[in-house]
Amino acid sequence: MASHLIDELCVETESKIVFLILDGLGGLQMGEHPVTELEAANTPNMDKLVAGNTCGALIPVEPGVTPGSGPGHFGLFGYDPVDANIGRGVLSAAGLEFELTERDVAARVNLATLDADGNIKDRRAGRIATEENERICEKLRKHIHLSDGVEFFLKTEKEHRALFVLRGDGLGGDLEDTDPQQVGVPTLDPKGADAASEKTAKYVRDFLQQARKVLSDEPQANFLMLRGFAKHRRYKTLNERFKLKTYAIANYPMYRGISRLVGMEIAPVSQNLSTQIDELERTWDKYTFFFMHVKTTDATGEDGNYAGKVKAIEDVDALVPRILARKPDVLVITGDHSTPSAMRSHSWHPIPILLAAKNVRRDRVMAFNENNCLQGGLGIFQSQHLMNYALAHAGKLIKFGA
Amino acid sequence: MASHLIDELCVETESKIVFLILDGLGGLQMGEHPVTELEAANTPNMDKLVAGNTCGALIPVEPGVTPGSGPGHFGLFGYDPVDANIGRGVLSAAGLEFELTERDVAARVNLATLDADGNIKDRRAGRIATEENERICEKLRKHIHLSDGVEFFLKTEKEHRALFVLRGDGLGGDLEDTDPQQVGVPTLDPKGADAASEKTAKYVRDFLQQARKVLSDEPQANFLMLRGFAKHRRYKTLNERFKLKTYAIANYPMYRGISRLVGMEIAPVSQNLSTQIDELERTWDKYTFFFMHVKTTDATGEDGNYAGKVKAIEDVDALVPRILARKPDVLVITGDHSTPSAMRSHSWHPIPILLAAKNVRRDRVMAFNENNCLQGGLGIFQSQHLMNYALAHAGKLIKFGA
Repeated sequence: MASHLIDELCVETESKIVFLILDGLGGLQMGEHPVTELEAANTPNMDKLVAGNTCGALIPVEPGVTPGSGPGHFGLFGYDPVDANIGRGVLSAAGLEFELTERDVAARVNLATLDADGNIKDRRAGRIATEENERICEKLRKHIHLSDGVEFFLKTEKEHRALFVLRGDGLGGDLEDTDPQQVGVPTLDPKGADAASEKTAKYVRDFLQQARKVLSDEPQANFLMLRGFAKHRRYKTLNERFKLKTYAIANYPMYRGISRLVGMEIAPVSQNLSTQIDELERTWDKYTFFFMHVKTTDATGEDGNYAGKVKAIEDVDALVPRILARKPDVLVITGDHSTPSAMRSHSWHPIPILLAAKNVRRDRVMAFNENNCLQGGLGIFQSQHLMNYALAHAGKLIKFGA
Repeated sequence: MASHLIDELCVETESKIVFLILDGLGGLQMGEHPVTELEAANTPNMDKLVAGNTCGALIPVEPGVTPGSGPGHFGLFGYDPVDANIGRGVLSAAGLEFELTERDVAARVNLATLDADGNIKDRRAGRIATEENERICEKLRKHIHLSDGVEFFLKTEKEHRALFVLRGDGLGGDLEDTDPQQVGVPTLDPKGADAASEKTAKYVRDFLQQARKVLSDEPQANFLMLRGFAKHRRYKTLNERFKLKTYAIANYPMYRGISRLVGMEIAPVSQNLSTQIDELERTWDKYTFFFMHVKTTDATGEDGNYAGKVKAIEDVDALVPRILARKPDVLVITGDHSTPSAMRSHSWHPIPILLAAKNVRRDRVMAFNENNCLQGGLGIFQSQHLMNYALAHAGKLIKFGA
C-alpha cells in the first residue's frame, strides 16, 4: 500500500472528530423536481453550520467512476480506494462479521441447481429460503473433509448466498470464479493464477467434488458456485495510521465490516440515528474518532423515492444539534457516493461535504447542497484526501518540513 | 503505459458519444476587447445547451503547460498526454498517413544547404518548392541502397520538410538529432543512446554518407538533417480500451493521423463543418463515438485574428442544432488547448467544456465561456479525465467494487 505523507505527521491528541456519513447523499434533479433532493430538503441546522464553516465536493474514486460501498468508504477513511479495493469474498466476510486470518481465502457462494446432465439450470437454486440455505451449509460442513489439515468454513448469508472460507498455509487468493454467469453450461473448474493460488484451487476442487456427492439428493440446491475469491488482507488501521481511537456507530453489516477492516471498534447494532447518537453520547469520552453511518438516504435513492430521500435528509438534519451539543472539534457531514433517486443507483456525481471546526477559513456558501458546495473553500477533491482536512482541523497534524 | 481503472469498467453499449472539438477554443481578452473571443461570440445554441447541462474547464496536460496538437488530443481521448507523447517523426508519419510497422523508426527531414566547407549555410535549403523536394526525394530513393535488408522510405511533406523512415529488425529509436539548430557548423553525426539505437545510427550514418554524394551536385538542397527520431509505438486503441466503435471526422492530416494512432476509422476529407455533419448523419448508425474536429478556431487564433475567431465560433454554434437533432447520448463541446488571438499561439490556459447528457447534474452556468465554465459542476480538471465523464454519462461504465 502506498505510504501517505499525513501518516508521518500525525500526533495523538484528545480532540474529537465526528464523521456523519449520509450514505448516497448526492442527488440529481428529477423529472418535475428542478432541484436535487438535498436542495429540496429543509435543512436549517446544516445550513446554519455551513454558513459559519467551509464546504466542498468529493469525488469518491476518480472522475466518472461510480463506487460500491467498499471503495466509497475506504476513500472517506483516507485510503486510496483503488489500492485498498478487495474481493467480494473478503467484503462478504467482513459484512458477516467473520474474522478472517492471514491463512484465509474467502469467496462468495451461490447455491445453484444443476440439471441431470450437470449443466446449470438455476444460478440461484430457485432463491431458496434462508433456512434451507442453513440446512445445506450444515450438511456440507458435516460431510466434507479436506486433507493436509486445510479447513473450510461456510456461513449462510441470505437466500441462495453464503460465504466460503478456506484456511490453510500458503494459500493464494488469485482464482477465477467457478460461476460461468450463464445457464445451460457446466460450472467452471477452479483455476489459480499462480502456484499459491493453484494450491488453493486444488483444495477447492476437492471441496466441490465432495459437495457434488453430498448434495446429489437435493431437489433445489444440488451444487454451489464460488466467485470473488480474495485472500485476507491486513490493512494498516486508522489507529495505527492516524493515532486515533476509533468507534463505528453503524448498523448495516457491510459498513460494520469495512469499519472492522480498518481497525475500528464497533458499537452494538442500534435502532436508528437517534439511538446511534445516544451511543455517541454514552461513549464520547472514550474515543477520538466517531464514524456515524446513516443508511436511509441511500435506500430511498435506490428506490427512486425522491420525496423519501428528502425526508431522510430532513430527519438527519433535525438530529444534528444533538451532535453539536457534544462540541466535536471537527464535524464532517458528507456521503460515500451519490445515489440520485433519478437513477435508482449509486452514481459518479460529486458529493457535497461540510466541514465544521474551529480553524476553518469560512467561505461564502450559505446553504448545504450540491451546487452551493461547488463554490466552497475546499473545492472539488478526492475523498481520500478528506481525512487530511479532518486531522488538520482537529490539530492532529504537525508541520511538514522545516 | 499506465493501466487505467476505467478501462476495466467499460461495457459495450449502443449509446452514442460525440466530441465536437474546436481546436484552440480557449482565448484571452485582447487590447480593446475586454472579453475573450468566446465571450464576445453570439452563441445562442451552445448557451442554451449549457443552461440545461453541466460544464467545467480542462487543463490539457498540467498547470501551465502549453500542449502541441498531439498531447492536446491524446488527453481528450483519455490517454495520459505525457506518457502517450511521441516523437515528431511518428507524428509526421501519422499526419502523412504513412502506416508505420513495429520494425520502423521515423524522423523528420529538413533539406539543407551546406557551404563548400561542409558547414550549414541554410537550414531550410532556401525553403525550396515542394516539387523540388519531391524530385530530391526521388533521387535519393533511386541511388541509395542500405545493407542487411534494411529499407528506408522518404516522403515529401512540404517545402523543405519530409519524412524519413528506416525499417529493419531490432532498430532502436532513441537517437539524437543530426540538426545542430544553427548555421556555420557541420551537421551532427547520428548517435544512439543504447545498443538498438546505435544499430539504427549505423544505417542512418550509411544513408547520410550516400546522400551527401548523391546530392553533391545540387545547388540548394545538397544535404539533409534528421530530427525527432522515434520508434513506432502501438497504442491500445479506443476500441480496445473503451469498447467503442470510433469514427474521426477530421480534415487535417495531423488530426487524422492521431485518430488513426488510437484506432479510429477515418472519414474521407470533407469540405467544412457542414459537410462533416453530413458525414456524421450518414454514418450515425454505424459508430458509438464520433470525433468532429474544427480547425478554423485555432487557425484564426494563430493569425491573431480576434474577429475571425469570434466568427469561427459563431459559425460552429449555428451548426450545433444539426448535431443535437441526431440525439447523441453525450455531446461534449470543448477544445484541445487554448489559442488566444492575443498570443498568436497555443497556450496553457484552461479550455471551457460543455457536457450535455441525460444524467448530468445541472449546474448554474447559463452561457458558454471561459469564466462562466469555471463555476461549472465539473470543476477544473485534466483533459485525460474527460473520457471518464463521457463514458459515465453514456452509461458505459459499471460500478467499481462491491
